[in-house]
Amino acid sequence: MTRTAMLAAALLATVATPVVAQADPVASAADAALTQDRYAWDFVEGVTTEVGPRQAGTEAEQRGRDWAVAWLKRNGFVNVADEPFEMDTWVPGDTHKAEILSPYAQPLVIQPLGNSASTGPDGIEAEVVEFENVDALRAAPDGSLEGKIAYISHSMTPTQDGSQYGFAGPARWVGAGIAASKGAVATIIKAVGTDYHRNPHTGGTSFPDGVEPTPAGALSLPDAANLERMFDRAQGTPIRMKLTLTPRRLGMTTSGNVVGEIVGRDPSLPPVLVACHLDSWWNGTGAFDDGAGCGIVAAAAKHAASGAQPLRTIRVLMAGAEETGLWGSKAYSAAHIDEPIAVGLESDFGADRIWRFESNFREANPALHARIASAVARFGVSNGTAVATGGADIDIARDQKTAIIDLQQDGTRYFDLHHTPDDTLDKIDPVQLRQNVAVWTQVVGILANEPGAILPR
Amino acid sequence: MTRTAMLAAALLATVATPVVAQADPVASAADAALTQDRYAWDFVEGVTTEVGPRQAGTEAEQRGRDWAVAWLKRNGFVNVADEPFEMDTWVPGDTHKAEILSPYAQPLVIQPLGNSASTGPDGIEAEVVEFENVDALRAAPDGSLEGKIAYISHSMTPTQDGSQYGFAGPARWVGAGIAASKGAVATIIKAVGTDYHRNPHTGGTSFPDGVEPTPAGALSLPDAANLERMFDRAQGTPIRMKLTLTPRRLGMTTSGNVVGEIVGRDPSLPPVLVACHLDSWWNGTGAFDDGAGCGIVAAAAKHAASGAQPLRTIRVLMAGAEETGLWGSKAYSAAHIDEPIAVGLESDFGADRIWRFESNFREANPALHARIASAVARFGVSNGTAVATGGADIDIARDQKTAIIDLQQDGTRYFDLHHTPDDTLDKIDPVQLRQNVAVWTQVVGILANEPGAILPR
Repeated sequence: MTRTAMLAAALLATVATPVVAQADPVASAADAALTQDRYAWDFVEGVTTEVGPRQAGTEAEQRGRDWAVAWLKRNGFVNVADEPFEMDTWVPGDTHKAEILSPYAQPLVIQPLGNSASTGPDGIEAEVVEFENVDALRAAPDGSLEGKIAYISHSMTPTQDGSQYGFAGPARWVGAGIAASKGAVATIIKAVGTDYHRNPHTGGTSFPDGVEPTPAGALSLPDAANLERMFDRAQGTPIRMKLTLTPRRLGMTTSGNVVGEIVGRDPSLPPVLVACHLDSWWNGTGAFDDGAGCGIVAAAAKHAASGAQPLRTIRVLMAGAEETGLWGSKAYSAAHIDEPIAVGLESDFGADRIWRFESNFREANPALHARIASAVARFGVSNGTAVATGGADIDIARDQKTAIIDLQQDGTRYFDLHHTPDDTLDKIDPVQLRQNVAVWTQVVGILANEPGAILPR
Repeated sequence: MTRTAMLAAALLATVATPVVAQADPVASAADAALTQDRYAWDFVEGVTTEVGPRQAGTEAEQRGRDWAVAWLKRNGFVNVADEPFEMDTWVPGDTHKAEILSPYAQPLVIQPLGNSASTGPDGIEAEVVEFENVDALRAAPDGSLEGKIAYISHSMTPTQDGSQYGFAGPARWVGAGIAASKGAVATIIKAVGTDYHRNPHTGGTSFPDGVEPTPAGALSLPDAANLERMFDRAQGTPIRMKLTLTPRRLGMTTSGNVVGEIVGRDPSLPPVLVACHLDSWWNGTGAFDDGAGCGIVAAAAKHAASGAQPLRTIRVLMAGAEETGLWGSKAYSAAHIDEPIAVGLESDFGADRIWRFESNFREANPALHARIASAVARFGVSNGTAVATGGADIDIARDQKTAIIDLQQDGTRYFDLHHTPDDTLDKIDPVQLRQNVAVWTQVVGILANEPGAILPR
């Protein structure tokens, strides 16, 4: 299309949809991405099909990095690198079994939590004691769980903003540690999730200093419901379980952060950092969490630079080993703390549509905040008043106290899939994925062409 | 309620809903069941919680029979018995793994098909060759699969009447036998199902006489889609898989049919036989298939007799070992072939609403057919023109060439759950379950009070 034709098209478009400034190459690129982006799908289809699960610190994660490095180079990114770091690596092992022995013998579907200890291959047998939530567990007297398996039944309901994770998550995050400190031989939880499929949600748990890690696992929600019915029916008769989980610690292994750039016209300016994580739990293929996020940020970087070279460099960070302790994010910040970034953004909440824009400079740089909010409104994105804090993969933005933007994705079904075997490519809606890319293109394009400081000091 | 009050209520009801004959105790019982039935849920909740999976021919199935016998007695059935028969028993074993070795190394989720042979604990490694359907596999030259694993990718779409099972089912039913006859070392199929969860649909497969059984398994649909993308991307590079499936044959073991009766006023008349099956595949808890069906038929028998003792006996048959070869249905027919039944009906297609009534006496006994059709219309059940042929558990009705009724359940989501780990209690909608019980109560009540032959000779 010639420039004259573009202007004519822009005038026509202005009549039809007055918000869209088609002559602006960034806006044009965002509009095109909405219907035509292929980068994001290509990335997430590729990494889930050709690599699959990418458990942090393992050879599979290394294959994921090699794949991502090749993808970035093939798609025109420069300064592509795999920046290694060392991490303390946990792997799930092969045997994940929970079996009710009495009074209602039957197997239940379980998966270990990250950092779970092993029961050994022969498993352990113990009575299961139910707690409705972490507070009830905290209230149990010290030593009262000696020889018992603690079960935490705290439920989760879906929310668009994902805020229920904060409410339901502690059952997984700290439950096993609390139970272990009271003598429990193991902890099982109702998976922190909102679906009813027999695919448990794993995720990291942690044990306080001085508390020896115990075996810890998540039951799928149908299995948790079954166990709870057993408690109702047994009327005090002890429920005995055999639990066999065989995770292992590998000690220190090498992971890495994959980085790549679209170099700006003025490389001396602090870059725009767009981040995601490349590792996944072993049980899924890491499509929603977070292959899609890596596809989105890389696609946005490409599109934002498609019309004209941006002023600032756009740097993509595909962090390693997020799931098991934000190892990559911390390592990246440590390695690059002295290289100021202009702003940090992360995509790590699935692949459903972006519905709200937030920044941490609404007060400090209201003009820029308003300009971005206005530019993304045509994609159905509202102007949020919360202060953006960024995600797990942009520790460096918090450590540098720089500008942060959160592009909130719809999380209504995120916890149907989060950390489960069901986190597979088929769950991604290509239309919503492209809406993500369009919004990201718009935002990254504005930021990368902003001459002044994003967050004035 | 006095009889006068009942008549008054019936008159009022006639004004409001002219089709409903409230004074008819059967209709009243059916109406009450629609909102108040507790038997069906009690049965299916109980058997799934207190017994769980009931693989045919195993100790778990025996526990299921013991449980059902106790339930029937507790709920007032008489002549309750567990009628044993011998069967050739297959069990799934403990190891079910499929791993792509190259070019895109990653694990896939698989479960063995019934009658699958074992790979041995060390598994087998071979190239995978794709066939779009059974016809394509049939067209492969003899010997062309020597040393290969055949993969059949035939898809299934949901249908209300379940008819897609006939279209997609052969991939499972006969695919492995055909592949084995052409030299394949194993067969894997895209699970015959309509969901996208990583819970493969198992089910029986069979090998022709003279063809040695091979290992055979079903990939979940997300895994099948992943494998198909690998074929697209590999562009001819062989896809190699390591397959480890360790099912075993136990030889002859004892299973049984659980029976119980509501005795009629004239026990000399042939009874109404209502059937289901009590066994399930090992991987789910047999809620949809077929704990619900057993709950529905037992509940209907109770309700149909709740207003007044029926003329004919209502006999409940909870067949054993349906899934692995209709062993119970055949054994029941063999044992009882000389005891004429009036009519046979089966519930074995989930727990969603009944939408169509069919009989095999629409022509031979049009008055009764019309009466039943009219009586169930108020529950939203249409009058079907197909000739009822009955289900797997009522061989005796076909063998005796007696009357058969099919109460067709909505199968739109049946093949989301069929033969998967996801066949659990939470999938049952209590409202639709009660609609089943109401329709069954109405139909069984009419039949049990019919003085003449249902299917005149």
